[in-house]
Amino acid sequence: MIGIFDSGIGGLTVVREFLKQLGGYDMIYFGDTARTPYGSKSPETVAAYACQDTDFLISKGARIIVIACNTVSSVATESIKAKYNIPVFEVITPAVELAVRMSNKYRFGVIGTRATINSGIYEYKIKQINADAKVYSAACPLLVPLVEEGWFKKRETAMIVKQYLQPLKVRQIDTLILGCTHYPLLNNIIQRKIGQRVKIIDSSAAVTEKVKNYLETHLEIDKMLSRRGQTKLFVSDVTDQFKKTAMAVLKKKVSLEHAKI
Amino acid sequence: MIGIFDSGIGGLTVVREFLKQLGGYDMIYFGDTARTPYGSKSPETVAAYACQDTDFLISKGARIIVIACNTVSSVATESIKAKYNIPVFEVITPAVELAVRMSNKYRFGVIGTRATINSGIYEYKIKQINADAKVYSAACPLLVPLVEEGWFKKRETAMIVKQYLQPLKVRQIDTLILGCTHYPLLNNIIQRKIGQRVKIIDSSAAVTEKVKNYLETHLEIDKMLSRRGQTKLFVSDVTDQFKKTAMAVLKKKVSLEHAKI
Repeated sequence: MIGIFDSGIGGLTVVREFLKQLGGYDMIYFGDTARTPYGSKSPETVAAYACQDTDFLISKGARIIVIACNTVSSVATESIKAKYNIPVFEVITPAVELAVRMSNKYRFGVIGTRATINSGIYEYKIKQINADAKVYSAACPLLVPLVEEGWFKKRETAMIVKQYLQPLKVRQIDTLILGCTHYPLLNNIIQRKIGQRVKIIDSSAAVTEKVKNYLETHLEIDKMLSRRGQTKLFVSDVTDQFKKTAMAVLKKKVSLEHAKI
Repeated sequence: MIGIFDSGIGGLTVVREFLKQLGGYDMIYFGDTARTPYGSKSPETVAAYACQDTDFLISKGARIIVIACNTVSSVATESIKAKYNIPVFEVITPAVELAVRMSNKYRFGVIGTRATINSGIYEYKIKQINADAKVYSAACPLLVPLVEEGWFKKRETAMIVKQYLQPLKVRQIDTLILGCTHYPLLNNIIQRKIGQRVKIIDSSAAVTEKVKNYLETHLEIDKMLSRRGQTKLFVSDVTDQFKKTAMAVLKKKVSLEHAKI
């Protein structure tokens, strides 16, 4: 199976893209809702949690791992790759590659959790491709709780988004990377506040494309993956609010199984 | 020592009150910042975490336990009392007793996390004292992240507080219980939005008073407690932001020791 995990339910935006582009494959998702959010925690703590999450997915039969969480991708990809001998995909590189392809002026904005932005990974990866690129970042720690509360269309959310984006707007970026899997759920507000001419890069779509290409060129891995079109969703804590948000993301009725890790 | 714990650093408002009223006693604090927040998680998960937190404090020499977290107080006090044979204090009962003493019209408002409000414990405890009391509750899940970001004086915070309080205001409450140890940090905004005539009950001050009275009447416990005026602060995850918020609460330089639990 394809194993996908996140600190909570934001990573379901990646599942949503996989269902669109790779819907035939069996998928297993794990959201660490008992310890969510990761984005305000230290790299050491995040890396320890991420390895436990990966262990869980592998124990359930995952043969490739997709880190559907920018915080984990930023600070723990190397630990996971070093520990497990299976293909591991993260959301940063595909988003960076897509952003560089899409940009004309090479003026990039990146928004994410504090842990992601502090890691500096987007700037590093963009400049590896184009050393002259300008990269401006902003940590937006309140957006995850706003999304998890389902405040997608509230005036306060729009005001907070505007405040966070202001420093990027004045830098006249032409491409904005949504460096957190929760943010595609605020896509409309973000587009409105940053301006219609700025291209928005959604890492969920980018990583799905990457995995699709990988499977097309690695048939020995591809044939190990089962294809009954089944998706199983596990979380470490089950509450009504988590269920509600999960349904808002996937736009259908879902059942969340409880996993103790 | 006096052991005090919370899901994160909101419980430091209780430490602040203890320092004022019981400053001579040695204190040990534990904030579970690696798994914060508790308020959106299920009762079972919160109870399991709370027992681990208590184990940690006892292993460090705590002889009485103060649960400086309304979520834990709401859903896990009985589990903790059943498991440990030492005095355990929670923040709900002292706040309820104080509120009932202060109220004239017996029209109470309670604000807290979703877990606290869903438990219905405030209404239950108030009605045990006065069956005719009216109790109106509102879950305010975004206030904890706003406090942890230090957004104490922002316009958006005031707007969100206003929205949360509106249903209580129309009920013409005369007493409002701050059912979360983070909320005293928003005291000014809350007072302004609910109206100057409403009495605000801060559970941090109420529980401190309760412990003080207890020690004055239980000298056999009191004499077990060391008194060098020392306070040790442990957290399960250390980040700059947690340090900053801790300093904002205690209004002095603090050092947070890392505890693995």
